[in-house]
Amino acid sequence: MHSKSVIAALSFFVALTAPSLAQTPVRALAEILEQSPASDWRSVEQENLLYMELPAGRVIIELAPDYAPRHAENIRALSRANYFNGSAIVRSQDNYVVQWGRDEGDAAALGEAHPTLQGEFDRPRAGVRITRLRDRDTYAREVGFANGFPAAGEHGRTWLAHCYGMVGAGRGDTPDSGNGGELYVVIGHAPRHLDRNVTLVGRVLVGMELLSIMPRGTGALGFYEDAAQRTAIRSIRIGSDLPASEQLPLEALRTDSATFLDVVESRRTRRESWFLQPTGRINLCNVPLPVRLRAS
Amino acid sequence: MHSKSVIAALSFFVALTAPSLAQTPVRALAEILEQSPASDWRSVEQENLLYMELPAGRVIIELAPDYAPRHAENIRALSRANYFNGSAIVRSQDNYVVQWGRDEGDAAALGEAHPTLQGEFDRPRAGVRITRLRDRDTYAREVGFANGFPAAGEHGRTWLAHCYGMVGAGRGDTPDSGNGGELYVVIGHAPRHLDRNVTLVGRVLVGMELLSIMPRGTGALGFYEDAAQRTAIRSIRIGSDLPASEQLPLEALRTDSATFLDVVESRRTRRESWFLQPTGRINLCNVPLPVRLRAS
Repeated sequence: MHSKSVIAALSFFVALTAPSLAQTPVRALAEILEQSPASDWRSVEQENLLYMELPAGRVIIELAPDYAPRHAENIRALSRANYFNGSAIVRSQDNYVVQWGRDEGDAAALGEAHPTLQGEFDRPRAGVRITRLRDRDTYAREVGFANGFPAAGEHGRTWLAHCYGMVGAGRGDTPDSGNGGELYVVIGHAPRHLDRNVTLVGRVLVGMELLSIMPRGTGALGFYEDAAQRTAIRSIRIGSDLPASEQLPLEALRTDSATFLDVVESRRTRRESWFLQPTGRINLCNVPLPVRLRAS
Repeated sequence: MHSKSVIAALSFFVALTAPSLAQTPVRALAEILEQSPASDWRSVEQENLLYMELPAGRVIIELAPDYAPRHAENIRALSRANYFNGSAIVRSQDNYVVQWGRDEGDAAALGEAHPTLQGEFDRPRAGVRITRLRDRDTYAREVGFANGFPAAGEHGRTWLAHCYGMVGAGRGDTPDSGNGGELYVVIGHAPRHLDRNVTLVGRVLVGMELLSIMPRGTGALGFYEDAAQRTAIRSIRIGSDLPASEQLPLEALRTDSATFLDVVESRRTRRESWFLQPTGRINLCNVPLPVRLRAS
């Protein structure tokens, strides 16, 4: 099951190409990745990986402790308290988010987790290494990639960006009303107006195609009106808590590498024969972030 | 079934709000629409509507003859030749497109339709009324809305933009290799690098949530490897070919109306109490395009 999921995830990142009558392979990007030096990849740390078990398979999320250290730690604590075991996907709103957690008042043990956390909406820009994109962005003066995550910035601050596949922590009306126990993933066009309003905690690396097809809820905001429509979550566990034999050795392309610059450029200016207009521009959320299994 | 589908579509456009622990209603936008004068809405012409029947319900697409007149006419001719009846959804690629049509070599009658058409990728900007957005766009100097559709432009040309829910006509490697018999819909972050590379023919008004959840295909580019994974299309018919009793009286908010400017501004600068950071900017593909049933 591991390799099948990972292949699906890889095809998600690598096979992004144009609608066509024939199945034209994208050679350019595949070649760039094949020819990349091993040093341009990083092993994703298992303590930053959430393994989420759904009836249809596994989703793996990488946490972003550089931007949301307290939320990452709280999600680890919730996971260790088995908080998520037996929780469910409760919301699926088209072109927006799929969300999971527990009902309010469903008293699951929090273990060592805090019941609420102050939001981690942004951080000082100074000292953060960002591989900048050169093209304009609607929502920020600067956009690029910080250690594998899409990021934006201006006025001396930087924050993670709500691109497809990014995972955030739901909250109520006050900035300190979330705790990482209710999470959502972006399944549509990037809702960048959520940037700096809510804490982004990570990104789906594997199994996004299991979350994005959740039947849309018919209640307000896409909540399921009938509990029978929910999808059960068997468990969410931290990679470093798993036996080594169950840890998936994922590697992500370093976003500060020369190979990544080549990836961006190959997508910025399309050279495949299908393209009549090479574009020569790219939006932050259209840049692929390649992930692979470490060769054994 | 009609009203249920339409309500789902309306909630897609109207209920776009933030992930939250509580179900906070968005008052601002709903109020704007409730208070709008009838003259700010247009009846969608039935000859521009495709009624697509899937096992799970109905999808309704509005054609864009202003930008793609030859494709609109060819799709009408294909529909009248029953070309789409018994076709299928053949591809579902995560964060990209869902596509339908017939296999190559599957000789369905074309009727009066042309077997191929020259691409309608863009048109002269002069004389086209576009309600411009003021914020920056990655892919074009000018973006806005032309008669209900997201559009972009520069250098004296204008073209439709690949936003979520937009429908295009697949083609092979040459610009004249499509005919509207193979269509796709955008189901992820806007793949704007396809703009001017392929002919956009319209937009899904109703039932998008039926298309976006199609299980992702595991073949290259998200094509289904096993024909059993396909979803059958019972028929695609033109609204004006249906008995009046079966025509759905849809109205779309005029994108050149004062109400639409209010809608844009309400989404550009968020005033709901949940928002801590009102953003003050909006991307072309994040602007809602309200649709409703005509009050009877």
